[in-house]
Amino acid sequence: MSSTIPKSSDIDVLVSEVGPRDGLQSIRRAMPTEAKNRWIAALAASGIREIEVGSFVHPKLLPQMADAEEVVHAALKLPGLTVVALAPNGKGAARGITAGVHKLSFPVSASHQHSMANIRMTPEQAIEEVRAVCAMRSSTPGRFPTIEVGISTAFGCSLQGAVSEDWVMEMAAKLVEAGARSVGLSDTAGSANPVQVKRMFRRLRSEIGDHAGAAHFHNTYGQGLANVVAALEAGVDTFDASQGGLGGCPYAPGATGNIVTEDLVFLLESMGLKTGIDLEALIAARAFVAEALPG
Amino acid sequence: MSSTIPKSSDIDVLVSEVGPRDGLQSIRRAMPTEAKNRWIAALAASGIREIEVGSFVHPKLLPQMADAEEVVHAALKLPGLTVVALAPNGKGAARGITAGVHKLSFPVSASHQHSMANIRMTPEQAIEEVRAVCAMRSSTPGRFPTIEVGISTAFGCSLQGAVSEDWVMEMAAKLVEAGARSVGLSDTAGSANPVQVKRMFRRLRSEIGDHAGAAHFHNTYGQGLANVVAALEAGVDTFDASQGGLGGCPYAPGATGNIVTEDLVFLLESMGLKTGIDLEALIAARAFVAEALPG
Repeated sequence: MSSTIPKSSDIDVLVSEVGPRDGLQSIRRAMPTEAKNRWIAALAASGIREIEVGSFVHPKLLPQMADAEEVVHAALKLPGLTVVALAPNGKGAARGITAGVHKLSFPVSASHQHSMANIRMTPEQAIEEVRAVCAMRSSTPGRFPTIEVGISTAFGCSLQGAVSEDWVMEMAAKLVEAGARSVGLSDTAGSANPVQVKRMFRRLRSEIGDHAGAAHFHNTYGQGLANVVAALEAGVDTFDASQGGLGGCPYAPGATGNIVTEDLVFLLESMGLKTGIDLEALIAARAFVAEALPG
Repeated sequence: MSSTIPKSSDIDVLVSEVGPRDGLQSIRRAMPTEAKNRWIAALAASGIREIEVGSFVHPKLLPQMADAEEVVHAALKLPGLTVVALAPNGKGAARGITAGVHKLSFPVSASHQHSMANIRMTPEQAIEEVRAVCAMRSSTPGRFPTIEVGISTAFGCSLQGAVSEDWVMEMAAKLVEAGARSVGLSDTAGSANPVQVKRMFRRLRSEIGDHAGAAHFHNTYGQGLANVVAALEAGVDTFDASQGGLGGCPYAPGATGNIVTEDLVFLLESMGLKTGIDLEALIAARAFVAEALPG
């Protein structure tokens, strides 16, 4: 997920690794907790500054994520790492807050149909859920996580079809008003094109200023990095990506995996944009996935 | 290969299919001539306006291209298709002229080492070879093909390393002076990045005006379409691509295949740029490759 929180001054672009959450939830088999921890540690050691390590969703729905607390606890010990977890609702958020995550990310969908399929709430209800979570800040002792939202299906929905850009912008403004620190745009359906990406992220910035958050692209028809180039031109400085391209939404038929973290880092560094990530060490981290999930 | 010849006004971008040449030469097994002809016809029927159908290289070096004359003859019967063939030298060019191709493309490499490995000539010798071919115009009765050059290794060379941008621009000017109608830039090594692509193509246009030709990108680390977006911003309107991404240079270790024609068409059309190509029909044309070269 995203960040408009000032990044370390030694990097130009924040690469946010979502593989341990978005990637693993799309694989039926669960990766053992110890293997997840080793993988996350290897990713962090390569210079990745932010990792979405799990999802506080009900374990009946996603048994692969049942160990989210344990994984968060291990990740919090890694120096310099921002630990993010996804929460689909207030219950999940409460678990994440208790676990001590640095950031909680909410998938709020612009498409009514996708929203119902994914989290059984309308977009409007999801916004109210974010508001309720942000309101927990006053009654929560200690550190409260940064609340981030990625607007799913922001560029179109494979269930519903077109999504109104005005509605996406209206949602973004409402989410900021509800207390979200940043709101990014996610191409859940894998249908975004560079023209649309540049237009939408420019508009997002003009609507919500520095609350404008991360870009989350999929790689359908190989368009992922083309969209990254367009988003960079619109001023986006945080990108979600997944090691090896693992991932994709089960409720977005036809979409392929996330953009590949290794490819994204190669692109950014070759463009002269510092990521702080050692590409060789990043590629070596693949071994931890291959070992735990052969094939 | 490229075109700065005015395109039909009903398209915005010319997609030049190089699979039957660049793709097939990288596969050891030869595709039967009849299968090539069926594939080329299917590509043309999908709306592809320009196809590099073969290479007039010595059949001992590339037996897969030994049927270039027959393939050209069949392709010349397809209505509206611009038939391109590659010629590595004057001998090949003479064969292409006799066969009646619309365009001859020359791979002139900016890297001394790559040039020697690929065509056994220095870059300077290759420029003189282009000059000699262009001079054949005065002594050739009938139609003379358009002479196009793609500068190989224009963005770097996997054998030699860095390639001087000044040298690439100097070559482009010399090639135009030698008689080439258009000069494009090819990322043979698959190492170009969007920043470099935009800079180089802008510079090319300022050096040689509307003689500036096509972009030829490979897809190493998934960068191909990212480079297309950058090239579009620099005003490039002709792109080489290969069905299914077949192809790559045997003398560019580490480079992967060409950009995928289907992905390129999807990108351009989704950006609102007309290609004149029916994506479904284009995808259906894959069957002719799969049938003739199983696996």
